[in-house]
Amino acid sequence: MKTVVVGGGVIGLATAWRAAREGVSVTVIDPAPGGKASHASAGMLPGHSGQLYEQEELLRLCLASRDLWPSFVAELEEFAPSGFRRDGVLDVAFDEDALRDLDQQLAFQESLGIHAERLSPEECAKLQPAFGPVLAGVLMPDDGAVDPRILQPALITAIEALGGTVIRRGATRVEDHTVVLDNGDKVPFDRVVLAAGCWTHQIEGLPEGAIPEIRPVKGQILRLHSETPLLNLTSRALSTGGASLYLVPRLDGELVVGSTYEETGYDETVTAEGTQSLLTRVAKFIPGVGSLRFAEISAGLRPASPDGLPVIGPTTVPDVYMASGHFRMGVQLTPITASIMASYLTDTTPHDSAPPFTPLRFS
Amino acid sequence: MKTVVVGGGVIGLATAWRAAREGVSVTVIDPAPGGKASHASAGMLPGHSGQLYEQEELLRLCLASRDLWPSFVAELEEFAPSGFRRDGVLDVAFDEDALRDLDQQLAFQESLGIHAERLSPEECAKLQPAFGPVLAGVLMPDDGAVDPRILQPALITAIEALGGTVIRRGATRVEDHTVVLDNGDKVPFDRVVLAAGCWTHQIEGLPEGAIPEIRPVKGQILRLHSETPLLNLTSRALSTGGASLYLVPRLDGELVVGSTYEETGYDETVTAEGTQSLLTRVAKFIPGVGSLRFAEISAGLRPASPDGLPVIGPTTVPDVYMASGHFRMGVQLTPITASIMASYLTDTTPHDSAPPFTPLRFS
Repeated sequence: MKTVVVGGGVIGLATAWRAAREGVSVTVIDPAPGGKASHASAGMLPGHSGQLYEQEELLRLCLASRDLWPSFVAELEEFAPSGFRRDGVLDVAFDEDALRDLDQQLAFQESLGIHAERLSPEECAKLQPAFGPVLAGVLMPDDGAVDPRILQPALITAIEALGGTVIRRGATRVEDHTVVLDNGDKVPFDRVVLAAGCWTHQIEGLPEGAIPEIRPVKGQILRLHSETPLLNLTSRALSTGGASLYLVPRLDGELVVGSTYEETGYDETVTAEGTQSLLTRVAKFIPGVGSLRFAEISAGLRPASPDGLPVIGPTTVPDVYMASGHFRMGVQLTPITASIMASYLTDTTPHDSAPPFTPLRFS
Repeated sequence: MKTVVVGGGVIGLATAWRAAREGVSVTVIDPAPGGKASHASAGMLPGHSGQLYEQEELLRLCLASRDLWPSFVAELEEFAPSGFRRDGVLDVAFDEDALRDLDQQLAFQESLGIHAERLSPEECAKLQPAFGPVLAGVLMPDDGAVDPRILQPALITAIEALGGTVIRRGATRVEDHTVVLDNGDKVPFDRVVLAAGCWTHQIEGLPEGAIPEIRPVKGQILRLHSETPLLNLTSRALSTGGASLYLVPRLDGELVVGSTYEETGYDETVTAEGTQSLLTRVAKFIPGVGSLRFAEISAGLRPASPDGLPVIGPTTVPDVYMASGHFRMGVQLTPITASIMASYLTDTTPHDSAPPFTPLRFS
């Protein structure tokens, strides 16, 4: 069975790798693998997101992915370093409203069996001395982050080591069990997976409505740098009025600060305003951050499906599959999405969190 | 006469070019010509600077350079485009204190015979519609700006066209009429010009005190970009409390915004705080600037001599000359500095603004 994956972000690459492990012959098509939203992403892997309180099915998917990360990483690291760290996530509240959210979150995490500890301001200051005064914190010692700029090259290495192919071209069209490339070349397939983020539905040649529209939601993200890491562990700084940030330190001194949320269509421009907003917010939470080197501002387009939920599985078109719509959770949901897709591609039963995310719900 | 110029910023390159025009055999030594402070610089060419009220000698030097720009550019453009534009500089006051400064400046400019017109808020808005509300403006129609990123390559082209050489290596030492390079090579000279900005006094092999210490003063500078230029002409936005900025638009849509002023030694780091400061200040003056693309933040080290004034001419060491210490005025003072140095190097009398800037004043 020859499977072609259109789109080489984390979702497409991980799907190809997990399918290759099951003996599927895989080819990934992407003009610049690992270059779009996944490249901008901070790669935070939180134990929980506020979004999940009333989304039981998405919550199940998230928890399944969280459980898979360690084995996913262990198997990937047989090929190359993954950039994964599981040394804790610390959420901190900078005001009273945020404190209420934090306590609500803690109760929810405890109900889910996620290991989480409430910390006093003093305990937070000890763990993360760079922060300004906080009201309280919640530490999730079993969570962490992954660096997509390490993860994605590792996935490519693993795919190629297993005999898979990565074609660095754009895909324009699917017709007659063939993907047509931007240079006119044709790549035949038995099955195809469309995993091109917010560009997924723009691939031509499929019946109207077969692929739901995937809306781009821009996020701008800042990278600062110091000789030694300013923060000791991944954090979310919670504050009211849209000022919350996530803060992901890397061992090499990089500090990833995100993000903005902009509905501006297919626009990947990094702006003066986006940069200023991130710099101003992070300076409020970390008084000493101003001296860090400004390393990068980048932007990615989060792929949002019509109902805001991931779209994973077979479409109404025979042999055409889809894995997109992960919105803000692409990296987080990578292992479970790849596992589900590998099951579909090998005609085995996918994980039981999969059914609600079928593309067929839009037909 | 073989002359070696150590340092390939605007001052060194222009000196070499003007000397080559006079028949001097020139070699410029710089590991990355045009790469340091001159590369960061906005290249504003104002008709006047507040700094000059009580500095008659510096004022004479500035006015002499201002007079030379048009012919300097015309002759350079026989070789390559210069990036020079003389389509006006508009200074605007955003508060009452700045308005007082602006009026004082206008009176001073009129006393110097510099063409300057006071503009009403409405006239400012017509010229520069992107600005927020201003109290008044002063237009200097005969002034403008130059893009050092175009100027410097043009100077290199002109030097090489006239038979000069540019060696892309570092210079470490001067001894026995020879410059020693960082690879051990030796470049013999009859005369040498040290024009290495704030690194000038670090060149080894010269007697203690022969070269005054040139202090680095860091400036961070922002480059934004829009499809069409947001501003129509070069401006200074004057405001109290250190919030003033210069704003230099390029025809390709680049907008250069400067700058910070930092005494932090030999440190060229671009920082979170410097970037935030420039973004926050420019957003106050230009409400619509937030949507511009963030193109670059860079830093340069302004070369400040012990008395803050340029150092131009022969030193106490025979055949060793110096051209540095231009502080915030390097680009502005390029034509007059190059003219003075070319006179010294051809044993003719330099412009009568030159004598106060002799290196000998420090011995």
